[in-house]
Amino acid sequence: MSEPARARWDALFTNVHLATMTDGYGELVDAAIAVAGGRIAWLGPRGQAPGEARAVHDCGGAWMTPGLIDCHTHIVYAGNRSDEFEARLNGAGYEEIARRGGGIMSTVRATRAASVDELVRASLPRVASLLAEGVTTIEIKSGYGLTLESERAMLQAARRIGELLPVRVATTFLGAHALPPEFAGRADDYIGHLCEHMLPELAGQGLVDAVDAFCERIGFSHDQTQRLFETARKLGLPVKLHAEQLTDQQGAQLVARYGGLSADHLEHLSPEGVRAMAEGGTVAVLLPGAFYFLRETVVPPVGALRAAGVPIALATDCNPGTSPMTSLLLAMNMACTLWRLTPQEALAGCTVHAARALGMHDEAGTLEVGKRADFALWKIARPADLAYGIGFNPCQAVVNAGALRPAQMPASAC
Amino acid sequence: MSEPARARWDALFTNVHLATMTDGYGELVDAAIAVAGGRIAWLGPRGQAPGEARAVHDCGGAWMTPGLIDCHTHIVYAGNRSDEFEARLNGAGYEEIARRGGGIMSTVRATRAASVDELVRASLPRVASLLAEGVTTIEIKSGYGLTLESERAMLQAARRIGELLPVRVATTFLGAHALPPEFAGRADDYIGHLCEHMLPELAGQGLVDAVDAFCERIGFSHDQTQRLFETARKLGLPVKLHAEQLTDQQGAQLVARYGGLSADHLEHLSPEGVRAMAEGGTVAVLLPGAFYFLRETVVPPVGALRAAGVPIALATDCNPGTSPMTSLLLAMNMACTLWRLTPQEALAGCTVHAARALGMHDEAGTLEVGKRADFALWKIARPADLAYGIGFNPCQAVVNAGALRPAQMPASAC
Ligand SMILES: [Zn+2]
Ligand SMILES: [Zn+2]
Repeated sequence: MSEPARARWDALFTNVHLATMTDGYGELVDAAIAVAGGRIAWLGPRGQAPGEARAVHDCGGAWMTPGLIDCHTHIVYAGNRSDEFEARLNGAGYEEIARRGGGIMSTVRATRAASVDELVRASLPRVASLLAEGVTTIEIKSGYGLTLESERAMLQAARRIGELLPVRVATTFLGAHALPPEFAGRADDYIGHLCEHMLPELAGQGLVDAVDAFCERIGFSHDQTQRLFETARKLGLPVKLHAEQLTDQQGAQLVARYGGLSADHLEHLSPEGVRAMAEGGTVAVLLPGAFYFLRETVVPPVGALRAAGVPIALATDCNPGTSPMTSLLLAMNMACTLWRLTPQEALAGCTVHAARALGMHDEAGTLEVGKRADFALWKIARPADLAYGIGFNPCQAVVNAGALRPAQMPASAC
Repeated sequence: MSEPARARWDALFTNVHLATMTDGYGELVDAAIAVAGGRIAWLGPRGQAPGEARAVHDCGGAWMTPGLIDCHTHIVYAGNRSDEFEARLNGAGYEEIARRGGGIMSTVRATRAASVDELVRASLPRVASLLAEGVTTIEIKSGYGLTLESERAMLQAARRIGELLPVRVATTFLGAHALPPEFAGRADDYIGHLCEHMLPELAGQGLVDAVDAFCERIGFSHDQTQRLFETARKLGLPVKLHAEQLTDQQGAQLVARYGGLSADHLEHLSPEGVRAMAEGGTVAVLLPGAFYFLRETVVPPVGALRAAGVPIALATDCNPGTSPMTSLLLAMNMACTLWRLTPQEALAGCTVHAARALGMHDEAGTLEVGKRADFALWKIARPADLAYGIGFNPCQAVVNAGALRPAQMPASAC
């Protein structure tokens, strides 16, 4: 009787505890996990591995989670708005700041003036900050260009970041972020311009993985958003939406009707919106950084989302105006502290549910055979430590598609 | 006519913008700063340096601030309380957690069981997290031992940290943090024990730089605190106080009457307390991490403190129960976001005023000739960026008594 052939793997990570995140959470202590061809080939109890690996990494009793996923960022931009932050804290009102040229249009001006290289250079330190905390996938939105050329530059910068740093980047076209001055008073015309020119051209160049809009009284209307979603559908692109952040515009129902990946923010989400999202399989992406920074008091309906079985993801919303946040661990802490998510829910929100919000749930977000070998290794006593610390980074190493790297990017990379 | 002799310095940092923090703030752009014998020897406009240095560091247009000072921490402890954090978020009440042995006594048990080496090993990563953000001085309190041996071990661990890492450590005896189980129902006896045995012995061993207490309904009374302060006075030790965090115990008046360094927390500080602090020269140390983590709604009287000219310092309050925070930059952001301090006030709170809260204002906290050459170098556009970012660390290097080090401690140091 011959022994069964033993598998040959590229790498085996052993002496490790796994937070698998399958079925929402799942732990496997004192385990090992094998990688072949950049994917998970096996995982199970340590010492029972039915194969051998070219490289064996003793993780020294660390915890391993799926690589974290930041599924909602505006991390590519030029300039920043600390001057505005300072002016407001020194008593300047919104009107005065607008008179001085502040607000989102100051970021639009700075971003339009920047080359792709300059956008990359300005954004890399922010992305590196996320990556030091075990992030292996991020979404990056356009939306500070608002012209074909400048939106293209933002999306090209996003793609370039994915080449320069060990991170998978999903791009989102957010031309419908704000009305550019060139179209003042002509929002419908601007939406027409997006639908007929910008989006088809950028999608044709392979720069767009999904389409988003800011559906709000101070943004674009329900009807305008729907026109954009129709174009996205024709182009075969998935949609998502900035919805019910300040008021209930029934954006959740709209994006769910289009089978949208996610509805994001949701402080003012109605019970009907919850129901529509549950039926549409749309993920709720909650953004505690913006809630905190804007000192919001209306909390997203976490209990209703839970009860309806809507997956809840968390993201930084990294942006210069309302969430200058570059720590996903901190978003986890804020979601627990401010909204009473459990640490397990917070971790699921940055792994399995965030993967679903990017349409990557077949590829990422859990530790399961066949998924991409994107891991974060943590020097912690238990997974709850990740959400418990405030400004503490226990990440000791990261694995991207099977390749091990230190948590901190070398400064030269930025 | 011979030229005046040119000075010979150890180092010159040039091509740098200085946030001097003299008179509360102060900027000097396009400057240089010279170091000799670990102290600031000269500073002024770049190109006008009246001397030469053995080492010249081109700072590439970075901003330099005084090294940051975290003037209120309980950073030495064993165990953590993420299990309790998790239990509470899963619906456990305080009673249930107490029944399970949670709360501060769980930290006391873990700390008592730890050796000095174990306390150091557990605490170094937390201290390193602060140091990566340009911190050069921290205060560390005892208060989880509550026996002579265990309080001594905590203070020895604090001193050891100051030898192992490039940070100046100020120790504070906080034996009056909580009533240990051995003295249940006998708080007066415990205070007697502190005054007659513990404090004199630990002070005699040179382990105590200042004396603190938790003056609160659930802590120690005004009278008990006063007895402790009398002992401190006899021993020649400065005092400070956890005051008016949950209720007004007139702790601010008490500590001010003893010429105390600081009154800390102060959410429930009265106008009389503000006045007493102004007269006593006592610093207000505000702790936004605990305010945030406990979801407090009563804000410390920032406007009244400002109006009375009481210096406002900020600190992490790093501790496992109510502020598991290891980022002083985040404390700055929280103070601005939640309490509307200005970015300049926040920076002063972690430099010049924090130095005063530790009785080190002649030595540290500003960029002035004669002070210790403890600097932080930042890759930022303007000082307000330090308080503006949420979870972003732009520190590029740190200088301790004239010696340059990278911002990130090598992992081997921890
Ligand atoms: Zn957004
Ligand atoms: Zn404290």
